[in-house]
Amino acid sequence: MELGVVGLGRMGANIVRRLARNGHRCVVFDRNPEPGRVLAAEAGATTAADLAGVVAGLAAPRAVWVMLPAGAATEAAVQELAGLMEPGDVIIDGGNSFWKDDVRRGAELKARGLHYLDIGTSGGVWGLERGYCLMIGGDSEPVARLDPIFAALAPGLGDIPRTPNAGALDPRVEQGYIHAGPTGAGHFVKMIHNGIEYGMMQAIAEGFDILRNAATPALPPEHRLELDLPGIAEVWRRGSVITSWLLDLTSAALAEEADLGSYSGHVEDSGEGRWTVQAAVEEAVPAEVLTAALFARFRSRQDHTFAEKVLSAMRKGFGGHQEPGKK
Amino acid sequence: MELGVVGLGRMGANIVRRLARNGHRCVVFDRNPEPGRVLAAEAGATTAADLAGVVAGLAAPRAVWVMLPAGAATEAAVQELAGLMEPGDVIIDGGNSFWKDDVRRGAELKARGLHYLDIGTSGGVWGLERGYCLMIGGDSEPVARLDPIFAALAPGLGDIPRTPNAGALDPRVEQGYIHAGPTGAGHFVKMIHNGIEYGMMQAIAEGFDILRNAATPALPPEHRLELDLPGIAEVWRRGSVITSWLLDLTSAALAEEADLGSYSGHVEDSGEGRWTVQAAVEEAVPAEVLTAALFARFRSRQDHTFAEKVLSAMRKGFGGHQEPGKK
Amino acid sequence: MELGVVGLGRMGANIVRRLARNGHRCVVFDRNPEPGRVLAAEAGATTAADLAGVVAGLAAPRAVWVMLPAGAATEAAVQELAGLMEPGDVIIDGGNSFWKDDVRRGAELKARGLHYLDIGTSGGVWGLERGYCLMIGGDSEPVARLDPIFAALAPGLGDIPRTPNAGALDPRVEQGYIHAGPTGAGHFVKMIHNGIEYGMMQAIAEGFDILRNAATPALPPEHRLELDLPGIAEVWRRGSVITSWLLDLTSAALAEEADLGSYSGHVEDSGEGRWTVQAAVEEAVPAEVLTAALFARFRSRQDHTFAEKVLSAMRKGFGGHQEPGKK
Amino acid sequence: MELGVVGLGRMGANIVRRLARNGHRCVVFDRNPEPGRVLAAEAGATTAADLAGVVAGLAAPRAVWVMLPAGAATEAAVQELAGLMEPGDVIIDGGNSFWKDDVRRGAELKARGLHYLDIGTSGGVWGLERGYCLMIGGDSEPVARLDPIFAALAPGLGDIPRTPNAGALDPRVEQGYIHAGPTGAGHFVKMIHNGIEYGMMQAIAEGFDILRNAATPALPPEHRLELDLPGIAEVWRRGSVITSWLLDLTSAALAEEADLGSYSGHVEDSGEGRWTVQAAVEEAVPAEVLTAALFARFRSRQDHTFAEKVLSAMRKGFGGHQEPGKK
Repeated sequence: MELGVVGLGRMGANIVRRLARNGHRCVVFDRNPEPGRVLAAEAGATTAADLAGVVAGLAAPRAVWVMLPAGAATEAAVQELAGLMEPGDVIIDGGNSFWKDDVRRGAELKARGLHYLDIGTSGGVWGLERGYCLMIGGDSEPVARLDPIFAALAPGLGDIPRTPNAGALDPRVEQGYIHAGPTGAGHFVKMIHNGIEYGMMQAIAEGFDILRNAATPALPPEHRLELDLPGIAEVWRRGSVITSWLLDLTSAALAEEADLGSYSGHVEDSGEGRWTVQAAVEEAVPAEVLTAALFARFRSRQDHTFAEKVLSAMRKGFGGHQEPGKK
Repeated sequence: MELGVVGLGRMGANIVRRLARNGHRCVVFDRNPEPGRVLAAEAGATTAADLAGVVAGLAAPRAVWVMLPAGAATEAAVQELAGLMEPGDVIIDGGNSFWKDDVRRGAELKARGLHYLDIGTSGGVWGLERGYCLMIGGDSEPVARLDPIFAALAPGLGDIPRTPNAGALDPRVEQGYIHAGPTGAGHFVKMIHNGIEYGMMQAIAEGFDILRNAATPALPPEHRLELDLPGIAEVWRRGSVITSWLLDLTSAALAEEADLGSYSGHVEDSGEGRWTVQAAVEEAVPAEVLTAALFARFRSRQDHTFAEKVLSAMRKGFGGHQEPGKK
Repeated sequence: MELGVVGLGRMGANIVRRLARNGHRCVVFDRNPEPGRVLAAEAGATTAADLAGVVAGLAAPRAVWVMLPAGAATEAAVQELAGLMEPGDVIIDGGNSFWKDDVRRGAELKARGLHYLDIGTSGGVWGLERGYCLMIGGDSEPVARLDPIFAALAPGLGDIPRTPNAGALDPRVEQGYIHAGPTGAGHFVKMIHNGIEYGMMQAIAEGFDILRNAATPALPPEHRLELDLPGIAEVWRRGSVITSWLLDLTSAALAEEADLGSYSGHVEDSGEGRWTVQAAVEEAVPAEVLTAALFARFRSRQDHTFAEKVLSAMRKGFGGHQEPGKK
Repeated sequence: MELGVVGLGRMGANIVRRLARNGHRCVVFDRNPEPGRVLAAEAGATTAADLAGVVAGLAAPRAVWVMLPAGAATEAAVQELAGLMEPGDVIIDGGNSFWKDDVRRGAELKARGLHYLDIGTSGGVWGLERGYCLMIGGDSEPVARLDPIFAALAPGLGDIPRTPNAGALDPRVEQGYIHAGPTGAGHFVKMIHNGIEYGMMQAIAEGFDILRNAATPALPPEHRLELDLPGIAEVWRRGSVITSWLLDLTSAALAEEADLGSYSGHVEDSGEGRWTVQAAVEEAVPAEVLTAALFARFRSRQDHTFAEKVLSAMRKGFGGHQEPGKK
């Protein structure tokens, strides 16, 4: 099949590559001409000079995959494409947009006869080889039409043990892609994936923190333990209940550097973790763990919070406690 | 009445002073002779050279109030006093002991015919003037016997509005002291008091943190607010739902220094906060807020946790994210 | 002065009453004519048949206080009033609106020459007697113009001890009202007040839960404590660090019914608690305690969460654990 | 080799079976004679009539694996064995003992010339086929001596992708067992494994709760999503960041029953989750996520907490809010 791809950062470029390996042809555009040139050479991609060129380079009914930073960049590209495309064409937002933006955009495009698919794409730097887990929101017709694209991008069955009763599920899910529901559902499901990711990461991280501090001099000598963190991470990869890709990555990092001394401990967060908390609040779902995981990242980026100074001020007020001086 | 007082730090010394103002006589001892000398001059206290001197200076049935740091110091003093005193005498631990230590000590002393009272004492630097809120655990007889002491130390009715139906309660509670239950109950109740204190402090602190960061440049300009924190703290002291002594102290601190810039944000914790969490876990009571308040203090004392480095390492592993370098 | 008041529920009606006691005259309207009739008789209010009547009953420059449920009702009333009023007039939203709605509305009204004040109003059922703590957002001119209204509604200095250095603050805050900042600031500050309220309440509630469960048979007999909860609540009102209005209320409730058996434990939440979490997330402020307090309420309204069933399903999967059967 | 095995519940019996498959001979005992009879027939085990029989049936230096419930049963068996065994013999506690009990027991046994190994054993109902992940604490000599036993029980390399740099680790960890450190280290590491397990489970569970409630009528219709939970769980098994055994189990459960209607939502916890929190508190490590996961289980087992009633009582006090009546 043919696919337009707009935005050739690491994710966009690798999507083009994986599609090319599976015999699909891409018409590509990026503000920066360099990655397009590379993909033309490497993956037989057709480069376009602008969005109009992408649209002109595809036969109707067209499909264009936008892979740009969420927010203004995606919004602008979708709006411009909408002005260039024809009824029956499909615009895909494969980035990390906020799902309510999808709902709005989907309705706007539908009014103009265009299809809109929001696709949450997981796979990171490993997607080119492992395949991308795709979570798709939108109407069934364009999802079915573009099935060869999704099947090519997804990981496929692989050698992962099959789930009992999986035969009763939509067959696409075992291939690693899902039509999750109407417009917005794709990014909603991806958002929750990332929310769970934050929580699982924090669980692992806290566990290793307790392991490491088992040797703290604050403990009585008979209860201090010096533990082999890289070994523990590795041993848990086999036969334990917490085997997971995140644990694999933890083991790899600790095997390389047991004290992780090259990391500052400053941890970024992205929109999905925040929107997950927002969704929980809107649905009145208690989500302590997902929220605590987000807050731990917020905290990691500050020397001290103002809250902590307020605590010290109160302690001085009622107890005369003098905390260690200003830093 | 007569009372022995062992340990003349700020709390112990002020207890002697408040008792003297109410006509009670204290026989006092501290390893450091200086505070005893001051109290002899200032509050008519009789100084003793050691614990034996304290016991010798009192008529049976005696009562000695130990006001020393929890742990080894208190344990040693109680054990030595136990060897010096006679059946019917009372040993009071007025410090911040772990309540299970009281249970053990109470049983040991009972076997020797001695009484043991554990008294949680709240009041801090303000207790001399405001009075001390006393939470007493132990047998009824010695609690009744020492009632004049407790009544003198407690705040009394004051001008605090009476609670409807308070007439049905034990009359002592309106005076600011309570016989909370058997041995251990005094320090257990004090422990929970401090646990609640941590939670309330953290609630206030987080609120002011959000107020302060309402002006953060991370927000879109139309949603940034510069707020008058000292004014807000003060206005909430009148007619709001969160009026409290802790808010009074917050207002006083902010009125003195709006940005609390002289505080480092390093916040200590003491045993009671930790034991509260332990009690919640033992009782299977979900205590999210009290625990989160404790953990916030733990976090405040570190540059970065090891957990945060583990997070960064995983993020690099799956997404190639490079967090800001080592600090 | 004169004030229009729209919405005569408990809060609106008591505002009229308190203003009348201080010599102000109100022109009032409510869809239900009954409370207007009562206020005419009781507080000399002038009743109007509709919003136009309210506007017509006031001399320019007018001020109308809207005291309606946040959301559609307030929005409709503000928009209709805006169409009826003249440049220089003031519309006040005294309800619990979301502060970003204020920012939008304030800008719309400013474009038409009208003033808009958002006023967070705390005081509940006690406000008529104690006065209302007012948190005001908007331009300085109308805030100054309406000062007599605010001064009448606010609690005033009362007999609350003055904060040291309070003389350096805006004098209004000691009277119990504050010009908190530009449009939106009033409801933002009220929102945080309620967020703190949730956190403080939860801290107190968890503490009493641990006190009550100190007698649980799950503990070893030597560590079980039967505690006098009403007495403890009352004793903490005097000389403790956690003295607060919320503790006063807890003591009153426990004095009436020690096991609180007439309460179901189903706890509602309102917008402010949720918006506080949202603000924390937007500002990247870790707010564990305020969020946990909100989630505890969410959880209180469900028999079981779906999350809990997912846990049981996993436990059965890896360990063969059979949780107690379907309820 | 030879191994005594005491306690033939599911875990103990499967350990005997797995050892037999690998050519090791077991002398077994259980208070209930039935499982011994089965293992004699099925796995060539030698049955003993009591602990003395187990010891008598082994040649020195002996090793006996105790696989009994933590607490009194394990304590009694270890003490009785210690009285029967000779210097150089090894007692293994393979159950879920509290690690500080190991430290104490290890010291007691060392004084009598006996070795003590604490082994955390993960694998549950799957261990017989997948192998057991073993976390071993104790002296190096007996750990080395019993290596063939551990190697037989552990999963081995299998087809799990090797961790880069794993060659630098102790070679045993890639086989699925680890000498984690001195006495206590085995159960400490297993405890943290379970703590992480709780956190990861709760992260997954909260995520699915938000997915399910995306269709709640509390949301505005345009933002409601009906999502295919079994499909989502399955699709995340391929190419996503959160691939894990726990997700596999979630997918299997949802594929069988999409609404998990046969589960009550009542979730048990075991000692390890609680001790993990205790360790975090003792080490002053903030462990929000692991603690919140534990508290969610506590909450799941109650209709309503007392804390929730306290909240309702306060809300009635300040706002006249009448929560839905007693349940």
